[in-house]
Amino acid sequence: MMPKLIDGRAIAERVYAELRDEIVSLKSRGATPGLAVVLVGDDPPSRAYVRAKDKTCRELGLHSVKLELSATTTQAELLARVDELNRDEKIHGILVQSPPPPQIDEAAIIRALDPRKDVDGFHPLNVAKLALEDDTGFVPCTPLGCLRLLRETGIALSGANVVVLGRSMIVGKPMALLLMRKGIDATVTVIHSRTRNISESCRRADVIIAAIGRPHFVRTEFVREGATVIDVGINRVEDAGSERGYKLVGDVDFESVSKLAGAITPVPGGVGPMTIAMLMSNTIKACRQITSFQATKSG
Amino acid sequence: MMPKLIDGRAIAERVYAELRDEIVSLKSRGATPGLAVVLVGDDPPSRAYVRAKDKTCRELGLHSVKLELSATTTQAELLARVDELNRDEKIHGILVQSPPPPQIDEAAIIRALDPRKDVDGFHPLNVAKLALEDDTGFVPCTPLGCLRLLRETGIALSGANVVVLGRSMIVGKPMALLLMRKGIDATVTVIHSRTRNISESCRRADVIIAAIGRPHFVRTEFVREGATVIDVGINRVEDAGSERGYKLVGDVDFESVSKLAGAITPVPGGVGPMTIAMLMSNTIKACRQITSFQATKSG
Repeated sequence: MMPKLIDGRAIAERVYAELRDEIVSLKSRGATPGLAVVLVGDDPPSRAYVRAKDKTCRELGLHSVKLELSATTTQAELLARVDELNRDEKIHGILVQSPPPPQIDEAAIIRALDPRKDVDGFHPLNVAKLALEDDTGFVPCTPLGCLRLLRETGIALSGANVVVLGRSMIVGKPMALLLMRKGIDATVTVIHSRTRNISESCRRADVIIAAIGRPHFVRTEFVREGATVIDVGINRVEDAGSERGYKLVGDVDFESVSKLAGAITPVPGGVGPMTIAMLMSNTIKACRQITSFQATKSG
Repeated sequence: MMPKLIDGRAIAERVYAELRDEIVSLKSRGATPGLAVVLVGDDPPSRAYVRAKDKTCRELGLHSVKLELSATTTQAELLARVDELNRDEKIHGILVQSPPPPQIDEAAIIRALDPRKDVDGFHPLNVAKLALEDDTGFVPCTPLGCLRLLRETGIALSGANVVVLGRSMIVGKPMALLLMRKGIDATVTVIHSRTRNISESCRRADVIIAAIGRPHFVRTEFVREGATVIDVGINRVEDAGSERGYKLVGDVDFESVSKLAGAITPVPGGVGPMTIAMLMSNTIKACRQITSFQATKSG
Protein backbone atom coordinates (compact mmCIF):
# COMPACT_ATOMS: atom_id res chain seq x y z
CA MET A 1 0.00 0.00 0.00
CA MET A 2 1.33 3.40 -1.00
CA PRO A 3 0.61 5.94 1.72
CA LYS A 4 -0.69 9.29 0.64
CA LEU A 5 1.66 11.88 2.03
CA ILE A 6 -0.33 14.77 3.51
CA ASP A 7 1.61 17.80 2.37
CA GLY A 8 1.12 20.48 5.00
CA ARG A 9 3.08 23.08 3.05
CA ALA A 10 0.92 22.66 -0.06
CA ILE A 11 -2.30 22.73 1.95
CA ALA A 12 -1.12 25.82 3.84
CA GLU A 13 -0.59 27.49 0.45
CA ARG A 14 -4.21 26.71 -0.46
CA VAL A 15 -5.29 28.32 2.82
CA TYR A 16 -3.21 31.39 2.00
CA ALA A 17 -4.80 31.61 -1.45
CA GLU A 18 -8.25 31.69 0.21
CA LEU A 19 -7.10 34.20 2.81
CA ARG A 20 -5.70 36.55 0.15
CA ASP A 21 -9.21 36.91 -1.28
CA GLU A 22 -10.52 37.72 2.19
CA ILE A 23 -7.76 40.24 2.76
CA VAL A 24 -8.46 42.00 -0.55
CA SER A 25 -12.11 42.18 0.39
CA LEU A 26 -11.38 43.55 3.88
CA LYS A 27 -8.87 46.10 2.58
CA SER A 28 -11.36 47.29 -0.03
CA ARG A 29 -13.55 48.23 2.92
CA GLY A 30 -10.75 49.99 4.74
CA ALA A 31 -9.74 47.23 7.16
CA THR A 32 -6.27 45.71 7.16
CA PRO A 33 -6.05 42.73 9.52
CA GLY A 34 -3.31 43.31 12.08
CA LEU A 35 -1.44 40.79 14.22
CA ALA A 36 0.80 41.60 17.18
CA VAL A 37 3.23 38.94 18.35
CA VAL A 38 4.86 39.54 21.70
CA LEU A 39 8.10 37.79 22.55
CA VAL A 40 9.52 38.05 26.06
CA GLY A 41 13.15 36.98 26.32
CA ASP A 42 15.33 35.41 23.68
CA ASP A 43 14.61 31.69 23.61
CA PRO A 44 16.00 30.73 20.17
CA PRO A 45 13.09 28.47 19.02
CA SER A 46 10.59 31.13 20.14
CA ARG A 47 12.49 33.77 18.16
CA ALA A 48 12.34 31.54 15.11
CA TYR A 49 8.57 31.05 15.47
CA VAL A 50 7.98 34.76 15.94
CA ARG A 51 10.08 35.53 12.86
CA ALA A 52 8.11 33.02 10.80
CA LYS A 53 4.79 34.50 11.90
CA ASP A 54 5.94 38.05 11.14
CA LYS A 55 7.24 37.01 7.71
CA THR A 56 3.97 35.28 6.81
CA CYS A 57 1.97 38.35 7.87
CA ARG A 58 4.08 40.53 5.62
CA GLU A 59 3.80 38.16 2.67
CA LEU A 60 0.00 38.23 3.00
CA GLY A 61 -0.04 42.01 3.32
CA LEU A 62 -1.25 42.01 6.92
CA HIS A 63 -0.28 44.68 9.40
CA SER A 64 2.32 42.99 11.60
CA VAL A 65 3.72 44.17 14.90
CA LYS A 66 6.58 42.28 16.47
CA LEU A 67 7.19 43.29 20.09
CA GLU A 68 10.47 41.97 21.48
CA LEU A 69 10.70 42.52 25.21
CA SER A 70 13.68 41.81 27.45
CA ALA A 71 13.89 38.58 29.45
CA THR A 72 13.57 40.66 32.64
CA THR A 73 10.20 42.17 31.68
CA THR A 74 7.89 42.18 34.71
CA GLN A 75 4.32 40.94 34.83
CA ALA A 76 3.07 44.53 35.22
CA GLU A 77 5.07 45.72 32.20
CA LEU A 78 3.77 42.88 30.07
CA LEU A 79 0.19 43.50 31.22
CA ALA A 80 0.60 47.16 30.26
CA ARG A 81 1.71 46.18 26.74
CA VAL A 82 -1.18 43.73 26.40
CA ASP A 83 -3.54 46.49 27.48
CA GLU A 84 -2.15 48.84 24.82
CA LEU A 85 -2.58 46.17 22.16
CA ASN A 86 -6.12 45.43 23.36
CA ARG A 87 -6.94 49.10 22.74
CA ASP A 88 -5.00 49.43 19.48
CA GLU A 89 -7.56 49.61 16.67
CA LYS A 90 -5.03 48.49 14.06
CA ILE A 91 -4.47 45.22 15.92
CA HIS A 92 -7.05 42.43 15.62
CA GLY A 93 -5.00 39.50 16.85
CA ILE A 94 -2.57 39.30 19.77
CA LEU A 95 -0.30 36.40 20.57
CA VAL A 96 2.13 36.16 23.45
CA GLN A 97 4.75 33.63 22.46
CA SER A 98 4.96 30.65 24.83
CA PRO A 99 6.82 29.87 27.03
CA PRO A 100 7.50 33.23 28.72
CA PRO A 101 10.27 33.56 31.35
CA PRO A 102 9.47 32.20 34.83
CA GLN A 103 8.58 35.57 36.42
CA ILE A 104 5.59 35.81 34.06
CA ASP A 105 2.22 34.30 35.08
CA GLU A 106 1.19 33.12 31.62
CA ALA A 107 -2.41 32.24 32.58
CA ALA A 108 -2.94 35.77 33.93
CA ILE A 109 -1.55 37.26 30.72
CA ILE A 110 -3.93 35.15 28.65
CA ARG A 111 -6.88 36.22 30.81
CA ALA A 112 -5.86 39.85 30.25
CA LEU A 113 -6.14 39.53 26.46
CA ASP A 114 -9.26 40.92 24.83
CA PRO A 115 -10.94 37.60 23.98
CA ARG A 116 -11.95 39.03 20.59
CA LYS A 117 -8.23 39.35 19.78
CA ASP A 118 -7.14 36.03 21.31
CA VAL A 119 -6.17 34.36 18.04
CA ASP A 120 -4.38 31.55 19.88
CA GLY A 121 -7.73 30.49 21.38
CA PHE A 122 -6.35 30.11 24.90
CA HIS A 123 -8.50 32.71 26.72
CA PRO A 124 -11.10 31.03 29.00
CA LEU A 125 -13.96 32.53 27.00
CA ASN A 126 -12.62 30.95 23.81
CA VAL A 127 -12.04 27.62 25.58
CA ALA A 128 -15.70 27.77 26.66
CA LYS A 129 -16.92 28.73 23.19
CA LEU A 130 -15.20 25.69 21.73
CA ALA A 131 -16.90 23.40 24.27
CA LEU A 132 -20.22 25.20 23.76
CA GLU A 133 -19.91 24.96 19.97
CA ASP A 134 -20.08 28.74 19.56
CA ASP A 135 -18.46 29.58 16.21
CA THR A 136 -17.61 33.14 17.17
CA GLY A 137 -14.75 31.85 19.34
CA PHE A 138 -11.19 31.06 18.38
CA VAL A 139 -9.97 27.48 18.23
CA PRO A 140 -6.25 26.92 18.98
CA CYS A 141 -4.23 26.93 15.77
CA THR A 142 -2.71 23.46 15.93
CA PRO A 143 -5.94 21.44 16.30
CA LEU A 144 -7.58 23.74 13.76
CA GLY A 145 -4.75 22.95 11.35
CA CYS A 146 -5.09 19.22 11.97
CA LEU A 147 -8.80 19.40 11.19
CA ARG A 148 -8.07 21.16 7.92
CA LEU A 149 -5.48 18.53 7.00
CA LEU A 150 -8.03 15.79 7.69
CA ARG A 151 -10.64 17.55 5.56
CA GLU A 152 -8.16 17.81 2.71
CA THR A 153 -7.51 14.06 2.75
CA GLY A 154 -11.20 13.56 1.96
CA ILE A 155 -11.68 11.11 4.83
CA ALA A 156 -15.27 10.97 6.18
CA LEU A 157 -15.04 12.22 9.76
CA SER A 158 -18.68 11.69 10.72
CA GLY A 159 -18.76 8.52 12.80
CA ALA A 160 -15.05 7.86 12.26
CA ASN A 161 -13.10 6.49 15.21
CA VAL A 162 -10.50 9.10 16.05
CA VAL A 163 -7.88 8.54 18.71
CA VAL A 164 -6.24 11.67 20.10
CA LEU A 165 -2.97 10.86 21.85
CA GLY A 166 -2.40 13.52 24.49
CA ARG A 167 -4.70 15.68 26.62
CA SER A 168 -3.03 19.11 26.71
CA MET A 169 -5.04 22.32 26.47
CA ILE A 170 -2.92 23.31 23.46
CA VAL A 171 -3.72 20.28 21.33
CA GLY A 172 -5.34 17.17 22.81
CA LYS A 173 -8.42 18.56 24.55
CA PRO A 174 -9.35 21.22 21.98
CA MET A 175 -8.78 18.64 19.24
CA ALA A 176 -11.20 16.24 20.97
CA LEU A 177 -13.82 18.95 21.53
CA LEU A 178 -13.50 20.10 17.92
CA LEU A 179 -13.86 16.64 16.43
CA MET A 180 -16.86 15.63 18.55
CA ARG A 181 -18.91 18.73 17.81
CA LYS A 182 -22.10 18.56 15.80
CA GLY A 183 -21.46 18.72 12.08
CA ILE A 184 -18.04 17.05 12.45
CA ASP A 185 -19.39 14.14 14.51
CA ALA A 186 -16.30 11.99 14.97
CA THR A 187 -16.22 9.40 17.75
CA VAL A 188 -13.28 10.56 19.82
CA THR A 189 -11.13 8.69 22.33
CA VAL A 190 -8.53 10.64 24.27
CA ILE A 191 -5.52 8.54 25.20
CA HIS A 192 -2.70 9.54 27.54
CA SER A 193 0.14 8.26 29.66
CA ARG A 194 -2.20 6.40 32.04
CA THR A 195 -4.09 4.55 29.31
CA ARG A 196 -3.75 0.78 29.39
CA ASN A 197 -3.15 -1.07 26.11
CA ILE A 198 -2.45 2.09 24.14
CA SER A 199 -1.43 0.24 21.00
CA GLU A 200 -4.64 -1.82 21.02
CA SER A 201 -6.83 1.29 21.32
CA CYS A 202 -4.90 3.00 18.55
CA ARG A 203 -5.25 0.02 16.23
CA ARG A 204 -9.03 0.49 16.25
CA ALA A 205 -8.73 4.07 15.03
CA ASP A 206 -9.57 5.29 11.55
CA VAL A 207 -7.58 8.41 12.42
CA ILE A 208 -4.71 8.81 14.90
CA ILE A 209 -3.67 12.28 16.02
CA ALA A 210 -0.41 12.03 17.91
CA ALA A 211 0.28 14.92 20.30
CA ILE A 212 1.99 13.20 23.17
CA GLY A 213 5.42 14.80 22.85
CA ARG A 214 7.47 11.61 22.75
CA PRO A 215 9.72 10.93 19.77
CA HIS A 216 8.65 7.99 17.61
CA PHE A 217 6.08 6.85 20.18
CA VAL A 218 3.61 5.64 17.55
CA ARG A 219 4.98 2.53 15.87
CA THR A 220 3.50 0.05 13.40
CA GLU A 221 1.74 -1.97 16.10
CA PHE A 222 -0.36 1.13 16.86
CA VAL A 223 -1.70 1.53 13.34
CA ARG A 224 -4.37 -0.33 11.44
CA GLU A 225 -3.57 -0.68 7.74
CA GLY A 226 -5.04 2.24 5.85
CA ALA A 227 -5.51 4.50 8.89
CA THR A 228 -4.83 8.23 8.63
CA VAL A 229 -2.01 9.46 10.88
CA ILE A 230 -1.53 13.11 11.86
CA ASP A 231 1.72 13.80 13.68
CA VAL A 232 1.69 16.91 15.88
CA GLY A 233 4.96 16.12 17.64
CA ILE A 234 8.06 18.24 17.19
CA ASN A 235 10.79 16.62 19.29
CA ARG A 236 14.48 17.43 19.28
CA VAL A 237 16.63 14.35 19.30
CA GLU A 238 20.41 14.27 19.29
CA ASP A 239 21.95 13.87 15.88
CA ALA A 240 25.73 13.88 15.83
CA GLY A 241 25.68 13.90 12.03
CA SER A 242 23.85 17.21 11.78
CA GLU A 243 25.45 20.62 12.01
CA ARG A 244 23.11 21.71 14.83
CA GLY A 245 23.72 18.50 16.76
CA TYR A 246 20.03 17.61 16.77
CA LYS A 247 17.18 16.86 14.42
CA LEU A 248 13.44 17.34 14.69
CA VAL A 249 11.30 14.22 14.74
CA GLY A 250 7.62 13.64 15.28
CA ASP A 251 5.66 11.48 17.73
CA VAL A 252 5.27 8.92 14.94
CA ASP A 253 7.95 6.60 13.64
CA PHE A 254 7.39 7.84 10.10
CA GLU A 255 9.71 5.38 8.38
CA SER A 256 7.82 2.28 9.50
CA VAL A 257 4.31 3.69 10.01
CA SER A 258 4.21 5.31 6.57
CA LYS A 259 4.38 1.83 5.02
CA LEU A 260 1.09 0.95 6.69
CA ALA A 261 -0.90 4.19 6.91
CA GLY A 262 -3.43 5.23 4.30
CA ALA A 263 -2.33 8.84 4.71
CA ILE A 264 0.27 10.43 6.94
CA THR A 265 1.83 13.81 7.70
CA PRO A 266 5.61 14.20 7.65
CA VAL A 267 7.61 16.09 10.30
CA PRO A 268 8.60 18.72 9.32
CA GLY A 269 6.21 19.81 6.57
CA GLY A 270 2.95 18.46 8.01
CA VAL A 271 1.15 20.08 10.91
CA GLY A 272 3.76 22.82 11.45
CA PRO A 273 3.00 24.93 8.37
CA MET A 274 -0.74 24.58 9.08
CA THR A 275 -0.37 26.05 12.56
CA ILE A 276 0.89 29.34 11.13
CA ALA A 277 -1.74 29.26 8.38
CA MET A 278 -4.48 28.90 11.00
CA LEU A 279 -3.00 31.78 13.00
CA MET A 280 -3.38 33.95 9.90
CA SER A 281 -6.90 32.61 9.38
CA ASN A 282 -7.84 33.41 13.00
CA THR A 283 -6.40 36.92 12.66
CA ILE A 284 -8.53 37.58 9.60
CA LYS A 285 -11.59 36.16 11.38
CA ALA A 286 -10.85 38.48 14.33
CA CYS A 287 -10.62 41.45 11.97
CA ARG A 288 -13.92 40.49 10.33
CA GLN A 289 -15.64 40.11 13.69
CA ILE A 290 -14.24 43.26 15.26
CA THR A 291 -15.04 45.36 12.22
CA SER A 292 -18.35 43.49 11.77
CA PHE A 293 -17.67 42.73 8.14
CA GLN A 294 -19.16 39.54 6.85
CA ALA A 295 -17.01 36.80 5.38
CA THR A 296 -16.88 36.70 1.63
CA LYS A 297 -17.59 33.38 0.03
CA SER A 298 -14.16 32.28 -1.00
CA GLY A 299 -12.25 29.06 -1.42
CA MET B 1 -23.07 -12.83 38.59
CA MET B 2 -24.81 -10.72 41.21
CA PRO B 3 -24.63 -7.07 40.24
CA LYS B 4 -23.87 -4.58 42.92
CA LEU B 5 -26.69 -2.08 42.98
CA ILE B 6 -25.27 1.45 43.27
CA ASP B 7 -27.61 3.10 45.72
CA GLY B 8 -27.71 6.80 44.85
CA ARG B 9 -29.97 7.66 47.78
CA ALA B 10 -27.63 6.08 50.33
CA ILE B 11 -24.56 7.71 48.78
CA ALA B 12 -26.33 11.09 48.69
CA GLU B 13 -26.96 10.67 52.44
CA ARG B 14 -23.23 10.14 52.98
CA VAL B 15 -22.59 13.34 51.04
CA TYR B 16 -25.09 15.19 53.23
CA ALA B 17 -23.41 13.87 56.37
CA GLU B 18 -20.11 15.36 55.15
CA LEU B 19 -21.78 18.61 54.15
CA ARG B 20 -23.42 18.99 57.57
CA ASP B 21 -19.95 19.16 59.14
CA GLU B 22 -18.98 21.84 56.62
CA ILE B 23 -22.15 23.79 57.30
CA VAL B 24 -21.59 23.70 61.06
CA SER B 25 -18.06 24.96 60.54
CA LEU B 26 -19.19 27.77 58.21
CA LYS B 27 -22.02 28.84 60.52
CA SER B 28 -19.65 28.92 63.49
CA ARG B 29 -17.77 31.58 61.55
CA GLY B 30 -20.93 33.53 60.74
CA ALA B 31 -21.58 32.28 57.21
CA THR B 32 -24.75 30.41 56.27
CA PRO B 33 -24.57 29.07 52.71
CA GLY B 34 -27.50 30.42 50.68
CA LEU B 35 -29.01 29.08 47.46
CA ALA B 36 -31.50 30.89 45.23
CA VAL B 37 -33.47 28.83 42.75
CA VAL B 38 -35.35 30.79 40.10
CA LEU B 39 -38.28 29.21 38.32
CA VAL B 40 -39.90 30.99 35.40
CA GLY B 41 -43.32 29.62 34.46
CA ASP B 42 -45.06 26.58 35.82
CA ASP B 43 -43.73 23.52 34.02
CA PRO B 44 -44.75 20.70 36.41
CA PRO B 45 -41.47 18.69 36.37
CA SER B 46 -39.51 21.95 36.89
CA ARG B 47 -41.74 22.84 39.85
CA ALA B 48 -41.07 19.41 41.34
CA TYR B 49 -37.28 19.81 40.93
CA VAL B 50 -37.34 23.29 42.47
CA ARG B 51 -39.40 22.02 45.41
CA ALA B 52 -36.97 19.17 45.99
CA LYS B 53 -33.98 21.55 45.94
CA ASP B 54 -35.66 23.95 48.35
CA LYS B 55 -36.61 21.09 50.70
CA THR B 56 -33.06 19.72 50.74
CA CYS B 57 -31.64 23.18 51.51
CA ARG B 58 -33.98 23.53 54.48
CA GLU B 59 -33.16 20.07 55.78
CA LEU B 60 -29.46 20.93 55.71
CA GLY B 61 -30.05 24.29 57.37
CA LEU B 62 -29.05 26.34 54.35
CA HIS B 63 -30.57 29.68 53.53
CA SER B 64 -32.95 28.96 50.65
CA VAL B 65 -34.70 31.41 48.36
CA LYS B 66 -37.25 30.14 45.89
CA LEU B 67 -38.20 32.73 43.29
CA GLU B 68 -41.25 31.78 41.27
CA LEU B 69 -41.76 34.13 38.35
CA SER B 70 -44.68 34.17 35.94
CA ALA B 71 -44.45 32.45 32.56
CA THR B 72 -44.63 35.88 30.89
CA THR B 73 -41.52 37.23 32.64
CA THR B 74 -39.39 39.17 30.16
CA GLN B 75 -35.67 38.78 29.59
CA ALA B 76 -35.09 42.21 31.14
CA GLU B 77 -37.09 41.34 34.24
CA LEU B 78 -35.23 38.07 34.68
CA LEU B 79 -31.86 39.78 34.17
CA ALA B 80 -32.83 42.30 36.86
CA ARG B 81 -33.60 39.50 39.32
CA VAL B 82 -30.34 37.75 38.51
CA ASP B 83 -28.51 41.01 39.09
CA GLU B 84 -30.16 41.40 42.52
CA LEU B 85 -29.16 37.86 43.45
CA ASN B 86 -25.61 38.44 42.20
CA ARG B 87 -25.40 41.36 44.65
CA ASP B 88 -27.20 39.63 47.54
CA GLU B 89 -24.58 38.78 50.17
CA LYS B 90 -26.76 36.07 51.70
CA ILE B 91 -26.85 34.18 48.41
CA HIS B 92 -23.82 32.10 47.36
CA GLY B 93 -25.43 29.92 44.71
CA ILE B 94 -27.91 30.84 41.98
CA LEU B 95 -29.68 28.41 39.71
CA VAL B 96 -32.19 29.29 37.00
CA GLN B 97 -34.28 26.20 36.43
CA SER B 98 -34.10 24.88 32.87
CA PRO B 99 -35.93 25.03 30.51
CA PRO B 100 -37.22 28.61 30.74
CA PRO B 101 -40.12 29.78 28.54
CA PRO B 102 -39.28 30.54 24.87
CA GLN B 103 -39.05 34.34 25.28
CA ILE B 104 -36.03 33.84 27.55
CA ASP B 105 -32.50 33.65 26.09
CA GLU B 106 -31.12 31.05 28.48
CA ALA B 107 -27.48 31.40 27.37
CA ALA B 108 -27.61 35.16 28.05
CA ILE B 109 -29.09 34.55 31.50
CA ILE B 110 -26.28 32.11 32.31
CA ARG B 111 -23.66 34.61 31.13
CA ALA B 112 -25.26 37.21 33.43
CA LEU B 113 -24.73 35.06 36.54
CA ASP B 114 -21.82 35.90 38.79
CA PRO B 115 -19.57 32.95 37.89
CA ARG B 116 -18.66 32.60 41.58
CA LYS B 117 -22.34 31.83 42.27
CA ASP B 118 -22.94 29.63 39.19
CA VAL B 119 -23.45 26.37 41.12
CA ASP B 120 -24.84 24.66 38.00
CA GLY B 121 -21.43 25.09 36.33
CA PHE B 122 -22.87 26.35 33.04
CA HIS B 123 -21.27 29.82 32.92
CA PRO B 124 -18.56 30.00 30.23
CA LEU B 125 -15.89 30.73 32.85
CA ASN B 126 -16.79 27.54 34.70
CA VAL B 127 -16.90 25.56 31.47
CA ALA B 128 -13.39 26.83 30.77
CA LYS B 129 -12.17 26.06 34.30
CA LEU B 130 -13.30 22.47 33.91
CA ALA B 131 -11.36 22.13 30.65
CA LEU B 132 -8.36 23.94 32.15
CA GLU B 133 -8.45 21.74 35.27
CA ASP B 134 -8.89 24.74 37.57
CA ASP B 135 -10.48 23.46 40.78
CA THR B 136 -11.93 26.82 41.76
CA GLY B 137 -14.65 26.38 39.11
CA PHE B 138 -17.98 24.61 39.37
CA VAL B 139 -18.58 21.32 37.59
CA PRO B 140 -22.18 20.62 36.50
CA CYS B 141 -24.02 18.64 39.17
CA THR B 142 -24.96 15.55 37.18
CA PRO B 143 -21.45 14.58 35.98
CA LEU B 144 -20.08 15.48 39.41
CA GLY B 145 -22.64 13.11 40.95
CA CYS B 146 -21.71 10.35 38.49
CA LEU B 147 -18.05 10.71 39.44
CA ARG B 148 -18.89 10.39 43.13
CA LEU B 149 -20.97 7.27 42.44
CA LEU B 150 -18.03 5.76 40.56
CA ARG B 151 -15.66 6.57 43.40
CA GLU B 152 -18.00 4.92 45.89
CA THR B 153 -18.03 1.68 43.89
CA GLY B 154 -14.28 1.47 44.47
CA ILE B 155 -13.52 0.94 40.78
CA ALA B 156 -10.05 2.13 39.71
CA LEU B 157 -10.65 4.97 37.28
CA SER B 158 -7.01 5.61 36.35
CA GLY B 159 -6.51 4.02 32.95
CA ALA B 160 -10.03 2.58 32.90
CA ASN B 161 -11.84 2.61 29.57
CA VAL B 162 -14.88 4.81 30.06
CA VAL B 163 -17.50 5.25 27.37
CA VAL B 164 -19.70 8.33 27.71
CA LEU B 165 -22.87 8.01 25.65
CA GLY B 166 -24.00 11.52 24.72
CA ARG B 167 -22.19 14.80 24.10
CA SER B 168 -24.41 17.45 25.70
CA MET B 169 -22.96 20.38 27.65
CA ILE B 170 -25.07 19.32 30.66
CA VAL B 171 -23.67 15.81 30.96
CA GLY B 172 -21.63 14.21 28.18
CA LYS B 173 -18.93 16.80 27.54
CA PRO B 174 -18.33 17.86 31.16
CA MET B 175 -18.33 14.18 32.14
CA ALA B 176 -15.63 13.46 29.55
CA LEU B 177 -13.53 16.48 30.57
CA LEU B 178 -13.84 15.53 34.24
CA LEU B 179 -12.84 11.90 33.75
CA MET B 180 -9.83 12.64 31.56
CA ARG B 181 -8.30 15.22 33.89
CA LYS B 182 -5.04 14.58 35.67
CA GLY B 183 -5.53 12.69 38.91
CA ILE B 184 -8.61 10.91 37.57
CA ASP B 185 -6.91 9.73 34.38
CA ALA B 186 -9.62 7.66 32.73
CA THR B 187 -9.39 6.88 29.02
CA VAL B 188 -12.56 8.43 27.69
CA THR B 189 -14.48 7.78 24.49
CA VAL B 190 -17.48 9.99 23.70
CA ILE B 191 -20.13 8.19 21.70
CA HIS B 192 -23.19 9.77 20.08
CA SER B 193 -25.87 9.30 17.46
CA ARG B 194 -23.36 9.34 14.58
CA THR B 195 -21.06 6.71 16.05
CA ARG B 196 -20.77 3.50 14.06
CA ASN B 197 -20.89 0.17 15.92
CA ILE B 198 -22.03 1.70 19.18
CA SER B 199 -22.57 -1.65 20.88
CA GLU B 200 -19.07 -2.83 19.95
CA SER B 201 -17.45 0.31 21.39
CA CYS B 202 -19.51 0.01 24.56
CA ARG B 203 -18.55 -3.63 25.03
CA ARG B 204 -14.91 -2.60 25.41
CA ALA B 205 -15.76 -0.26 28.29
CA ASP B 206 -14.96 -0.87 31.94
CA VAL B 207 -17.48 1.86 32.69
CA ILE B 208 -20.49 3.01 30.64
CA ILE B 209 -22.14 6.33 31.40
CA ALA B 210 -25.42 6.55 29.51
CA ALA B 211 -26.67 10.09 28.92
CA ILE B 212 -28.22 9.82 25.49
CA GLY B 213 -31.85 10.43 26.44
CA ARG B 214 -33.31 7.36 24.78
CA PRO B 215 -35.27 4.87 26.90
CA HIS B 216 -33.63 1.46 27.29
CA PHE B 217 -31.04 2.26 24.63
CA VAL B 218 -28.28 0.30 26.37
CA ARG B 219 -29.02 -3.40 26.16
CA THR B 220 -27.04 -6.51 27.07
CA GLU B 221 -25.11 -6.57 23.80
CA PHE B 222 -23.59 -3.19 24.83
CA VAL B 223 -22.18 -4.45 28.11
CA ARG B 224 -19.15 -6.55 28.92
CA GLU B 225 -19.69 -8.85 31.88
CA GLY B 226 -18.65 -7.11 35.07
CA ALA B 227 -18.71 -3.59 33.65
CA THR B 228 -19.98 -0.68 35.74
CA VAL B 229 -23.06 1.03 34.30
CA ILE B 230 -24.19 4.55 35.30
CA ASP B 231 -27.59 5.52 33.95
CA VAL B 232 -28.19 9.27 33.67
CA GLY B 233 -31.36 8.95 31.60
CA ILE B 234 -34.75 9.98 32.94
CA ASN B 235 -37.25 9.24 30.18
CA ARG B 236 -41.02 9.28 30.45
CA VAL B 237 -42.62 6.32 28.75
CA GLU B 238 -46.33 5.58 28.57
CA ASP B 239 -47.59 3.25 31.24
CA ALA B 240 -51.34 2.58 31.11
CA GLY B 241 -51.09 0.68 34.40
CA SER B 242 -49.83 3.67 36.39
CA GLU B 243 -52.00 6.39 37.83
CA ARG B 244 -50.03 9.15 36.10
CA GLY B 245 -50.19 7.30 32.77
CA TYR B 246 -46.39 7.19 32.47
CA LYS B 247 -43.36 5.85 34.22
CA LEU B 248 -39.75 7.05 34.38
CA VAL B 249 -37.13 4.80 32.83
CA GLY B 250 -33.43 5.20 32.24
CA ASP B 251 -31.28 4.98 29.12
CA VAL B 252 -30.33 1.47 30.21
CA ASP B 253 -32.53 -1.61 30.02
CA PHE B 254 -32.01 -2.27 33.71
CA GLU B 255 -33.78 -5.61 33.83
CA SER B 256 -31.49 -7.35 31.37
CA VAL B 257 -28.28 -5.32 31.82
CA SER B 258 -28.30 -5.71 35.62
CA LYS B 259 -27.82 -9.47 35.15
CA LEU B 260 -24.51 -8.78 33.41
CA ALA B 261 -23.12 -5.63 34.96
CA GLY B 262 -20.66 -5.67 37.86
CA ALA B 263 -22.35 -2.59 39.30
CA ILE B 264 -25.28 -0.54 38.07
CA THR B 265 -27.42 2.44 39.09
CA PRO B 266 -31.20 2.12 39.16
CA VAL B 267 -33.63 4.75 37.77
CA PRO B 268 -34.97 6.28 39.91
CA GLY B 269 -32.67 6.20 42.93
CA GLY B 270 -29.31 6.32 41.16
CA VAL B 271 -27.95 9.49 39.57
CA GLY B 272 -31.02 11.64 40.41
CA PRO B 273 -30.44 11.96 44.17
CA MET B 274 -26.74 12.66 43.54
CA THR B 275 -27.52 15.62 41.28
CA ILE B 276 -29.24 17.44 44.14
CA ALA B 277 -26.50 16.40 46.58
CA MET B 278 -23.87 17.90 44.27
CA LEU B 279 -25.91 21.11 43.97
CA MET B 280 -25.73 21.41 47.76
CA SER B 281 -22.03 20.61 47.69
CA ASN B 282 -21.42 23.29 45.03
CA THR B 283 -23.40 25.83 47.06
CA ILE B 284 -21.27 25.17 50.11
CA LYS B 285 -18.13 25.41 47.99
CA ALA B 286 -19.38 28.75 46.64
CA CYS B 287 -19.98 30.01 50.18
CA ARG B 288 -16.50 28.91 51.23
CA GLN B 289 -14.89 30.58 48.23
CA ILE B 290 -16.87 33.82 48.42
CA THR B 291 -16.30 34.17 52.16
CA SER B 292 -12.69 32.94 51.74
CA PHE B 293 -13.05 30.33 54.46
CA GLN B 294 -10.99 27.23 54.01
CA ALA B 295 -12.59 23.81 53.76
CA THR B 296 -12.55 21.76 56.94
CA LYS B 297 -11.22 18.27 56.63
CA SER B 298 -14.40 16.27 56.72
CA GLY B 299 -15.71 12.99 55.33
